[in-house]
Amino acid sequence: MRTALLPPSGASTTVPLGTFRTEAGVDVPEAALRLFAWYDGPTAPHERPVLLVEHALTGDGDAADWWGDVLGPGRAIDTTRYLVLCANVLGGCHGSTGPSSPHPDGGYWGSRFPGISIRDMVSAEHRLLTGVLGVERVRAVIGASMGGARTLEWSLMHPEVVETALPVAVSARASAWQIGIQSSQIRFIEADPCWQGGDYHGTGRSPRHGLGQARRIAHLTYRGELELDERFSTDPQPGEDPYGPYRSRDQRFAVESYLDRQAEKLEERFDAGSYVTLTDALNRHDVGRGRGGMNAALGASQVPTTVVGVDTDILYPYHQQEHLSRNLGDFIGLSRITSPTGHDGFLTEGRQMDMVLRRHLGKAEIIAAR
Amino acid sequence: MRTALLPPSGASTTVPLGTFRTEAGVDVPEAALRLFAWYDGPTAPHERPVLLVEHALTGDGDAADWWGDVLGPGRAIDTTRYLVLCANVLGGCHGSTGPSSPHPDGGYWGSRFPGISIRDMVSAEHRLLTGVLGVERVRAVIGASMGGARTLEWSLMHPEVVETALPVAVSARASAWQIGIQSSQIRFIEADPCWQGGDYHGTGRSPRHGLGQARRIAHLTYRGELELDERFSTDPQPGEDPYGPYRSRDQRFAVESYLDRQAEKLEERFDAGSYVTLTDALNRHDVGRGRGGMNAALGASQVPTTVVGVDTDILYPYHQQEHLSRNLGDFIGLSRITSPTGHDGFLTEGRQMDMVLRRHLGKAEIIAAR
Repeated sequence: MRTALLPPSGASTTVPLGTFRTEAGVDVPEAALRLFAWYDGPTAPHERPVLLVEHALTGDGDAADWWGDVLGPGRAIDTTRYLVLCANVLGGCHGSTGPSSPHPDGGYWGSRFPGISIRDMVSAEHRLLTGVLGVERVRAVIGASMGGARTLEWSLMHPEVVETALPVAVSARASAWQIGIQSSQIRFIEADPCWQGGDYHGTGRSPRHGLGQARRIAHLTYRGELELDERFSTDPQPGEDPYGPYRSRDQRFAVESYLDRQAEKLEERFDAGSYVTLTDALNRHDVGRGRGGMNAALGASQVPTTVVGVDTDILYPYHQQEHLSRNLGDFIGLSRITSPTGHDGFLTEGRQMDMVLRRHLGKAEIIAAR
Repeated sequence: MRTALLPPSGASTTVPLGTFRTEAGVDVPEAALRLFAWYDGPTAPHERPVLLVEHALTGDGDAADWWGDVLGPGRAIDTTRYLVLCANVLGGCHGSTGPSSPHPDGGYWGSRFPGISIRDMVSAEHRLLTGVLGVERVRAVIGASMGGARTLEWSLMHPEVVETALPVAVSARASAWQIGIQSSQIRFIEADPCWQGGDYHGTGRSPRHGLGQARRIAHLTYRGELELDERFSTDPQPGEDPYGPYRSRDQRFAVESYLDRQAEKLEERFDAGSYVTLTDALNRHDVGRGRGGMNAALGASQVPTTVVGVDTDILYPYHQQEHLSRNLGDFIGLSRITSPTGHDGFLTEGRQMDMVLRRHLGKAEIIAAR
């Protein structure tokens, strides 16, 4: 392993990949991924087992930030024991090449950025890990949601690298409902006049409004109705009266105000073009494409895999994880996170995720020792 | 009963109510409701028990059209046996007074139309039935979704009129998730430049686009993911390729095209102002408001009630109907519709609804004979 290329532990570096060709045949010259690495303590990074963490749609490579409950020194994803890697996804907006990146020919990628698949994301990461860093084996690929989709594709595309896999809150392919709600979000962004056909970067106008609309809906697919109701019920926002004689958008329920904040926060930190690109990649997710169908593809999997789901997830309902567990070729077990929070349970239920991760990594150690 | 005021069986008539005052204190002069009635066969309408059917948000008074599986001669809601009434809701756009109606002072109601509650809808219907038609007793009030909310309020506001109630796929109050997704839909319509503050009627421009956006999302809350996946899976729309080198809105999945059609169909047949008004009323739905809280209100109910839910409903999850069943003061039973279709199961599962209705109306006959 070329450890000199690693960033300092807890930090990140941008790694050039050269020209990357997508599954559908478009060349992306000067592609790069931003890589985070953790390797606390005295052991040299190349003497540690590698864990690859895959982030979700609006996550990023700084997994210690969004998954601090389970990633760090002494945590389940123990940064004193493993070399933990997490790259910002291809198509994203936090340092990896995506629509908001400068184009080698000038300007920004914008609408010139191709449609990409989950497999494209994995191909770019594979080049990063094996081609650039010289990583030969990964003890476990671990990811939830869009990160879970990449985890599944890693195990199907590169079983020679992946020792074990832990996909969380994901399915073997997009469901029609997911495509419906995801494509609607794309429409909302496209309908914003500031979208400008996807070439708004550098124009001083960006489709924040459309992105905010998409986020409102997306957030309601990430958060369970039980948890939202615990927090907000039918409460009015303090100082406002949604029961007044005339409806007004200034007189809100507390949950409306909460969604306003969620929309604003994403508008601040995320690029609409990346949101569209990654959402489209989720629509294209299908492990069966070109592999003789979904169950044939899963059945051919050679990677020992633990599947995890959340009981109240409406975006990736638990029956989809049951489906994975019935069809994967080398299936370790199915873990059910119990939570009122829905899909985001993998983020909010730290204690349960900790147990699932420790159990899986314990088995992965035994598997690696065979 | 003033049967001369009834329309011919299977037809409708518009019934003036005079000035209607909303719960929040706004006067609506010259209010009217459009009423459908069915009374097939020789028995005079005033010699029949009355059934009041309550339609859902984008439904209308022509219940034989949207509920033909269960309403008609010899059907569970037997139009040869009962006098069946169904009024288009206050605030709607199919003949009852709403934002698209002419205002007595000129122009259209538009933004002058007040915010209304589910109770306001019921108050208007109560005036229609008891004040105008002289109906004294209703054998059963029956409704699903927004119609179920009116059914609950009928039983709490006018137990002296309602002999039994059959609310379907509804809850005692709006949940935070419902308010979240419903208020987002309102935002989408308001954000359409053609909305013009709600005063677009007669301008030649209407917020069709915003209404279509709202409908895409609403439809995905009405339809279960199992049913959508059965129909559309990851199929491309014939002749289109959503897996191509560049994402394009002309290259769709089949479910996208389906949602396009759903949006277009609603844009053709429904007024955006009514959609906003009725959606806002659903946000305001809370049987507990002013009655000492939700469970106190339900516990004080004096009307024998059968509650019905759909197992895969994500908009009004089944636990909400279980909650009603545990708290209603005079509870007959809880029926569970099994369906992949989700919320719309009350429309699609005709055989099951038929059974539920017949069983309830049988009990209602016994109750009426006491």
